[in-house]
Amino acid sequence: MSANIDTFENRLSSNATAIEALLDKLLSSEVLSDEITRPERLRAAMHYAVLNGGKRLRPFLVVEATALFGGDREAALRVGAALECVHCYSLVHDDLPAMDDDDLRRGKPTAHIAFDEATAILAGDSLLTYAFDIIASTQGALAESSKVALVLALSRAAGVGGMAGGQALDLAAEKQSPDEQGIVTLQAMKTGALIRFACEAGAIIAGTPANDRARLRLFGEKIGLAFQLADDVLDLTADAATMGKATGKDASRGKGTLVGLRGLAWVEATLNRLVCEAEELLAPYGERGKVLADAARFVANRKS
Amino acid sequence: MSANIDTFENRLSSNATAIEALLDKLLSSEVLSDEITRPERLRAAMHYAVLNGGKRLRPFLVVEATALFGGDREAALRVGAALECVHCYSLVHDDLPAMDDDDLRRGKPTAHIAFDEATAILAGDSLLTYAFDIIASTQGALAESSKVALVLALSRAAGVGGMAGGQALDLAAEKQSPDEQGIVTLQAMKTGALIRFACEAGAIIAGTPANDRARLRLFGEKIGLAFQLADDVLDLTADAATMGKATGKDASRGKGTLVGLRGLAWVEATLNRLVCEAEELLAPYGERGKVLADAARFVANRKS
Repeated sequence: MSANIDTFENRLSSNATAIEALLDKLLSSEVLSDEITRPERLRAAMHYAVLNGGKRLRPFLVVEATALFGGDREAALRVGAALECVHCYSLVHDDLPAMDDDDLRRGKPTAHIAFDEATAILAGDSLLTYAFDIIASTQGALAESSKVALVLALSRAAGVGGMAGGQALDLAAEKQSPDEQGIVTLQAMKTGALIRFACEAGAIIAGTPANDRARLRLFGEKIGLAFQLADDVLDLTADAATMGKATGKDASRGKGTLVGLRGLAWVEATLNRLVCEAEELLAPYGERGKVLADAARFVANRKS
Repeated sequence: MSANIDTFENRLSSNATAIEALLDKLLSSEVLSDEITRPERLRAAMHYAVLNGGKRLRPFLVVEATALFGGDREAALRVGAALECVHCYSLVHDDLPAMDDDDLRRGKPTAHIAFDEATAILAGDSLLTYAFDIIASTQGALAESSKVALVLALSRAAGVGGMAGGQALDLAAEKQSPDEQGIVTLQAMKTGALIRFACEAGAIIAGTPANDRARLRLFGEKIGLAFQLADDVLDLTADAATMGKATGKDASRGKGTLVGLRGLAWVEATLNRLVCEAEELLAPYGERGKVLADAARFVANRKS
C-alpha cells in the first residue's frame, strides 16, 4: 500500500503541475482578456491568490473522477481550474480581517496583506465570477447540458447552502459552540461541498447515468468529511511550520471540533470507517476505481 | 413625449413589482433550500440587500429587450432577477469599509451596518453565486445553449474585465485621477457592463440572430454610458434626501468625472447624442422598439 501511496502522490503532483500550468495561463494578462481593458493590479492579485502552491486536491478529484468514466481530460482540467478559482476565492475572503483575520497562508502573506483589503475583496469576487466563465467558455467535448449542470452544481456547492453558508456557520460557532450535528453540518457545507462537487463533476463531465453521478456525489461526501476531520487532527497536532499557517487556532477560539468533543481515538476510527465506505462506493468500478480509493486514503491520512 | 414617459414609468414600476415578487420568492426560506440547512442570518442579509427598493432598471431592460424579440417573459424575469442579485451584491461589497465605506443606501443602513461586515461580505458572495444558480435552474423556454451564453456573458460583464474591474479602477482613481479615456473605460466597466448585459440578455433569451444580439449589446452600451453621465450630474446637483445616499462624494474625493472635466453643457449634449444613437439602433424594429427608446430617454433624463 505504501507503494500505492507513492504512485498516488506522483500522480497527484503531476496533476497539480498540469492544473497550475492551466491556471497560470487562464490568469495571465494575455488570456484574461475582454473587449475592455483589465486593471493589472486586480489581475495580479487574482494570480497571486491562486498560484500559491497547494496540493490541488479538488482539481485532481475532478480529473480522476472524469477518467473513471472515460470522460474528456481537457474539459476536466478546465472544470478543475474553475473549481480551484472558487476554492482560492474562499481562502482570500476567509482570511480577511472581518473574517478569520489571517496574515499567513501556506507560509506567504495573505492577499489582503500582499495587496490591500479592497483589492483582496475584489480579487475574490473576480475569481468566483471567472470560474463560471471558464466552465461556460470550455470548447469541445463538453455538452451544453453538461455545462449547465456543472454551473448549477458548482453554484449550489459554493453558495449560501454550501461553502459560503458554512463559513457563516463557522463564524457563528465562535460565539456559541454548535453541538455535534451542528459541527457536522458546518463542515459538510464549508469544506465538504466543494470536495463533493469535485467528484460529482467527473460524472457530469463524462455524462454518466444518474446513479453513477449519485454514487460519486456520495463518495465525495465521505472524503469531504474525512478531509475536515483530518484537518481538525492536524490543527491540533501539527505545528505552524508544517502547515504554513497558524495552527491550534480553532481550539484557541473555542471553536467546537469533533476532535474536541469525541477525542482523537474516535476521530481515527471514524476516518477509517469513512475510507471503507468510500472504497465500497467504488467497488462497482473494480480496478478503475483504484486511484480514487487511494485518494480517499490519502485525504484521511494526510500529514499536512 | 411626457405622455410616453408617464406610460413608461407605469410600465417600469409594474415590472419592478413583478421582479421584486420573484426576488422575494427566490430569497425566501422556503425556496432558497438545498440538501443542507442554510444559515438563516445569511439568507436574511441576502434578502435585505436585494429587497431594498430601487427602480429595478436592469431587470426591466432584460424583460423589455426579450419582449422586443418575442422571447419568453418568465425566463426574462428569472434572468432579470439573477442580474439584480449581481447588481445588489456589488452594492453590498462597494459599501464595505475597505471600499467606499458607505453607511446609507437608499436611505437605509447598508448591509454591513444592518448586520455585520463578515455577514455582508458573505451575503455579497452568496448573491453573486446564486445568480448563476437562478439562470442554470430556469425551467421551460430557455434553451441549454442560451443558459450557457447567459452565464458566459454575465460572468464577463460582472468580472475582472467588467464590473469588478471597474470598481478596482474606481478605487485607484481616488489616488491618481484618470484622464478622460480612463474615466470612460472605468464607467463602461463599473456601471456600463451590467446594463449592456441586460439588453444583450434579451437577445440571448429570445435566441435572435447574432446581428440582433450585437445591436442590442451596442444599444446597452449607449444607455450604460448615459446612465453613468446622468449619475455624475445627479451627484453634483441632487441632494442626499433625493438620492437616499451621500452625494457630492465624487467631487469631495477628488474623483475625476466627465462633468468635472468637460462641464455640464458638454455632458447634456453628450447625453442627447447618446439617446439619439440609441434610438437609431432601434430603428429596424419600428414601433416595437418604442419602450426601449423611452428607456434610453428615461435613463438620460432621470432625476434620481
